[in-house]
Amino acid sequence: MENLTIVKVGGNIIDDDSQLQQFLHLFATIPGKKILVHGGGKLATKMATELQIPQQLVDGRRITDAETLKIVTMVYAGYINKNIVALLQQQQCNAVGFSGADGNLIQAHQRVHPTINYGYVGDVDGVNISLIQQLLNNNYTLVIAPITHNLKGQLLNTNADTIASVLATSLAAHYAVTLLYSFEKAGVLMDVNDEASVINTITLQQFAQLKAQRIIADGMLPKLENAFAALQKGVQRVIIGQANVLPDLLQGKAGTTLVSGN
Amino acid sequence: MENLTIVKVGGNIIDDDSQLQQFLHLFATIPGKKILVHGGGKLATKMATELQIPQQLVDGRRITDAETLKIVTMVYAGYINKNIVALLQQQQCNAVGFSGADGNLIQAHQRVHPTINYGYVGDVDGVNISLIQQLLNNNYTLVIAPITHNLKGQLLNTNADTIASVLATSLAAHYAVTLLYSFEKAGVLMDVNDEASVINTITLQQFAQLKAQRIIADGMLPKLENAFAALQKGVQRVIIGQANVLPDLLQGKAGTTLVSGN
Repeated sequence: MENLTIVKVGGNIIDDDSQLQQFLHLFATIPGKKILVHGGGKLATKMATELQIPQQLVDGRRITDAETLKIVTMVYAGYINKNIVALLQQQQCNAVGFSGADGNLIQAHQRVHPTINYGYVGDVDGVNISLIQQLLNNNYTLVIAPITHNLKGQLLNTNADTIASVLATSLAAHYAVTLLYSFEKAGVLMDVNDEASVINTITLQQFAQLKAQRIIADGMLPKLENAFAALQKGVQRVIIGQANVLPDLLQGKAGTTLVSGN
Repeated sequence: MENLTIVKVGGNIIDDDSQLQQFLHLFATIPGKKILVHGGGKLATKMATELQIPQQLVDGRRITDAETLKIVTMVYAGYINKNIVALLQQQQCNAVGFSGADGNLIQAHQRVHPTINYGYVGDVDGVNISLIQQLLNNNYTLVIAPITHNLKGQLLNTNADTIASVLATSLAAHYAVTLLYSFEKAGVLMDVNDEASVINTITLQQFAQLKAQRIIADGMLPKLENAFAALQKGVQRVIIGQANVLPDLLQGKAGTTLVSGN
């Protein structure tokens, strides 16, 4: 099977023009077929504040009301997505930007929750594999914004980590998929305060132990659970690490690589 | 040759949710291959005002400075484009939204003018026919926002009428192209104050006469000059008329049809 690299890049990189350009320069050099999934960054929150759209929090969770959805659609699928595409084109990487509504790429439904009304937040139902394959086979690089739709005319704000993971598992039957979560940290750390304490490889069993010992906690937990789920669904490699050393991550010289088996 | 219908829809329709939905419902029923090019509407100006970004005018012309480009990219390529795509998906029309940067679809350069610095305004250089053909042949409908790029990482604000015309002429060698400019007026009028005075068909010679007599003037002049240029470059039909009677326009029952020859 042909290789496919799916990279998720987080918000902190996107908020910084020079870090973003450096990252895209590295991303463009990845050989073969590739997909970039980007998060949102702080620009949407900044714009909502400037436009005096109050951010609703219920039980500490952010709610996507109609006005917030408008802002995130503009910022994620418009400003961030098109700037990334234009910058990749500059690097001779033939990028095409998508939301999940385009070509019915990612179908979702509005989140159902017993107590919290999250508003226009989408949970993913499926992926249009054929459009993705068609574009990858013609050497286009896909750049995907974390906005999906429900096939009934409603756009939905959707978690970018989840989109990356769903894409990886949906494409695992057709490509040898490497899923790479890149962000500002060096990888999964033994000591959260020490960037040098990166765990190079981790199995599901080791993860369970570190979780029981509370060495791995907080935001890293759902990321790793998602990542191990992807491995178990046929994704060949999952790597977590720092965006500015992207080639080293892919070569196993940096970051944390999740390993199948024990 | 297979038929291809390229529809430009203007700002006034886009600003009104119910008019836009009615228009998209009609657009979705157009048989065969089709492309929708949309303008910007007033939302970008409204957002710029709310964000206190001053709109620069030089000699009465609007300038696209860096902050204004950011707004139009968000609004045109983000909010408007993705909403149209989601609404078309609801109508079982498999739409894919694009800016000119995506897949290097529309290449442009920053406008050069002897006295006015228009800022980040693009004049079109070329079109990536192969991506358009590939998608049309797989029954996708393209929805194109009036944002292009210069291949050097710079997005550019570009006139939607021009984009529609350039797409039509670029694709005329491969498809029997109908180019349709839809807006709020009934067509080209003999009397601008009388919507019933629509000219049903007009030749280039008749246009020249009406222009000399100042019956056709102002904003309609560049629209018709663009439209006749498209006819002369191989586009089969150009139609100008009201968005809410789209099927009638295509059947020659309403609006103004531009005719080759004398």
